[in-house]
Amino acid sequence: MTRITALETADVRFPTSLSLDGSDAMNPDPDYSAAYVRINTDAADGLVGHAFVFTIGRGNDVQVAAIEALAGHLVGRDVEALLADMGGTWRELVHDSQLRWLGPEKGVMHMAIGAVVNALWDLRAKREGRPLWQVLAAMTPEALVDLVDFRYLTDALTPDEALQILRAAEPGRAAREAQLLRDGYPAYTTTPGWLGYDDEKLARLCREAVEEGFSQIKLKVGGDLADDVRRLGIAREMVGPDIRIAVDANQRWDVDDAVSWIKELSSFDLAWVEEPTSPDDVLGHAAIARGIAPVPVATGEHMANRVMFKQFLQHDALQVLQIDATRVAGVNENVAILLLAAKFGVPVCPHAGGVGLCEAVQHLAMFDFIAVSGSLEGRMIEFVDHLHEHFVSPVEVRDGRYVTPTAPGAGTEMRSASLAGYTVGTDV
Amino acid sequence: MTRITALETADVRFPTSLSLDGSDAMNPDPDYSAAYVRINTDAADGLVGHAFVFTIGRGNDVQVAAIEALAGHLVGRDVEALLADMGGTWRELVHDSQLRWLGPEKGVMHMAIGAVVNALWDLRAKREGRPLWQVLAAMTPEALVDLVDFRYLTDALTPDEALQILRAAEPGRAAREAQLLRDGYPAYTTTPGWLGYDDEKLARLCREAVEEGFSQIKLKVGGDLADDVRRLGIAREMVGPDIRIAVDANQRWDVDDAVSWIKELSSFDLAWVEEPTSPDDVLGHAAIARGIAPVPVATGEHMANRVMFKQFLQHDALQVLQIDATRVAGVNENVAILLLAAKFGVPVCPHAGGVGLCEAVQHLAMFDFIAVSGSLEGRMIEFVDHLHEHFVSPVEVRDGRYVTPTAPGAGTEMRSASLAGYTVGTDV
Repeated sequence: MTRITALETADVRFPTSLSLDGSDAMNPDPDYSAAYVRINTDAADGLVGHAFVFTIGRGNDVQVAAIEALAGHLVGRDVEALLADMGGTWRELVHDSQLRWLGPEKGVMHMAIGAVVNALWDLRAKREGRPLWQVLAAMTPEALVDLVDFRYLTDALTPDEALQILRAAEPGRAAREAQLLRDGYPAYTTTPGWLGYDDEKLARLCREAVEEGFSQIKLKVGGDLADDVRRLGIAREMVGPDIRIAVDANQRWDVDDAVSWIKELSSFDLAWVEEPTSPDDVLGHAAIARGIAPVPVATGEHMANRVMFKQFLQHDALQVLQIDATRVAGVNENVAILLLAAKFGVPVCPHAGGVGLCEAVQHLAMFDFIAVSGSLEGRMIEFVDHLHEHFVSPVEVRDGRYVTPTAPGAGTEMRSASLAGYTVGTDV
Repeated sequence: MTRITALETADVRFPTSLSLDGSDAMNPDPDYSAAYVRINTDAADGLVGHAFVFTIGRGNDVQVAAIEALAGHLVGRDVEALLADMGGTWRELVHDSQLRWLGPEKGVMHMAIGAVVNALWDLRAKREGRPLWQVLAAMTPEALVDLVDFRYLTDALTPDEALQILRAAEPGRAAREAQLLRDGYPAYTTTPGWLGYDDEKLARLCREAVEEGFSQIKLKVGGDLADDVRRLGIAREMVGPDIRIAVDANQRWDVDDAVSWIKELSSFDLAWVEEPTSPDDVLGHAAIARGIAPVPVATGEHMANRVMFKQFLQHDALQVLQIDATRVAGVNENVAILLLAAKFGVPVCPHAGGVGLCEAVQHLAMFDFIAVSGSLEGRMIEFVDHLHEHFVSPVEVRDGRYVTPTAPGAGTEMRSASLAGYTVGTDV
């Protein structure tokens, strides 16, 4: 029997605040960080599962401590049994009755479970010698349904409905996989739009985004209305009328403020408005969506769990759903969210950027295309050109599209030199 | 100038799972614990602010680590300045842009802020030589409004509306304070109802509850329907028709299950149904409330923040609102929630029990009576007769009512012998 021998963590921090990369209206000076985990086994193959929670600096040590609190569930356990029943493994972790009190199913403890679940998926994909998207896309509808915990979901999505969605997408799987390997997956870029960049840098990066083949860019807004108008004017002039421009307020507004602010920007033909208010506010987002229609509301990167996504969908509170690879409890919960989105017919445009979020989330979007929604319509993965050099299999974006990864694993393994160089404190 | 010299923590755990005290359908074997914090200053008075986050065992160390992550905001700071502007202090902690990423405003990091905020209030009350309820009830409406962060609330409650609510309650403050000091505050008891107790113990504890003067008891349900029917039958027989019986499902059900299960119990004349489903599910609770009317839905102990409470009130998803002293970000956020409840005309019946929750939350209910709602109608504080002996000023319940505390502070100081005896690990 092969056993898990250790769960190792590291507190990895990059000093990104020095360049204001990642600066927005709520997060003026992030230091992009990763609460990192490695799952080791005694298998002869020497394979290690890698994953992380993305944070923006302070508190990364707390996130590491939360991951370490899960060691008791894993060390000494039979690897094959855990990996063969990832639905059961997820339930065991999420429903630990004592740890659950610390959420329930939200915040530091839930994200820690996400890192451990994702590390197990990375290990499973490496053992199968395939990228994660391909591992998921090869599973039967029944096996995929078994990954999902339907507790609190059945008023919106039952296991039977999930099965029907997955079965309906089965016939075209092979053709879509071939298409993906040939053409990649559409991307949009947030690289030009950080609030801390001056107008000249904004203009240059907008021009470069068009040259690089992107059909959508995104700008941070919500700091100052006059600044937003000026910056959107520059961006629209640089990219022309055919490139879509989305804006992202990073939760800056109350409900009424959001509606009035966005109306001031409506002449710029916005592709969507992202995170207008608190990620917990289902009814607030619904009111904003009604107030700014036809401009769509996009949100999800800070949504705590599948129960929140369920409500946003039930209440038409978002029109673009943004999954995040390290906010909810890992791959399994994101499969649940993809199924919910498919049920409600809402496109998924994953949140990425940060450290390694592009590398991780592309697998979920590609799996969605092959086996769940079966569609690329209105779908794009966010791309930010930061920190990819620290990963063993960095994303490649060409002509405005993610090149479909073929390396085994979940994309979440950082280079050992980067881990050694950026780990702080005593958790090396 | 007086400065904060240290923020000390302790990982305190009581082995309550041995007796199944606290056992319910979601939490079969809790070990009641406290992630404890002490705030020391260099003042000559030697006063120390004490508070804690209540947890149920595993992960208490993670909660302690989160509290320690806040030391940088406090150590070396001017105590008078922090205490004189508790609204500003709260905002500084909650809006730390990097720590905020770990929530936002939910889970381990938010509860850690709650402990630190509550410890500062304990210190302030001790310095003023008054119990916390009296400190709050002596503040002007303007000063109380300034404690509240209205971000994300203004579509339901504006600062002006809050001011009007508080001003309307000003005239009767002195009379209600005198009434409180004379008569205490109504309580109900959960002591009989834990799921792990056998029928004989249930019957005995129900009888004792009536003898002790309680007019409401609460039973845990949701494990097994036949058991629930049998146990409710025993309880109703023991307490007679005039004592109210509430039930608590501790989040066990999906929406449809909750409605059908409760209908099976309707012949027992239920006072309320508590936590029927996920605490994140606003719309689910609203559907359940419609489905089981006129039986009220009670919830709140696991609700992450004021934005969630706002939505439950806006959507008529609860009819009894249960604040918790250590789930949201401390006294300030609970003042916001009390104001929201008053705006929507919903009674507040605080969650208590655990370790020290009775000691802490009574101050908020009493402040509510004097200065916010001005009413005792439909209002009771939960009482569970566990672990009070570990506190310097334990609650006293007499004839089914909390005796109004007069000792200076917030009630959150544990006895040093208990801290020494039950602290685990290295955080002593």
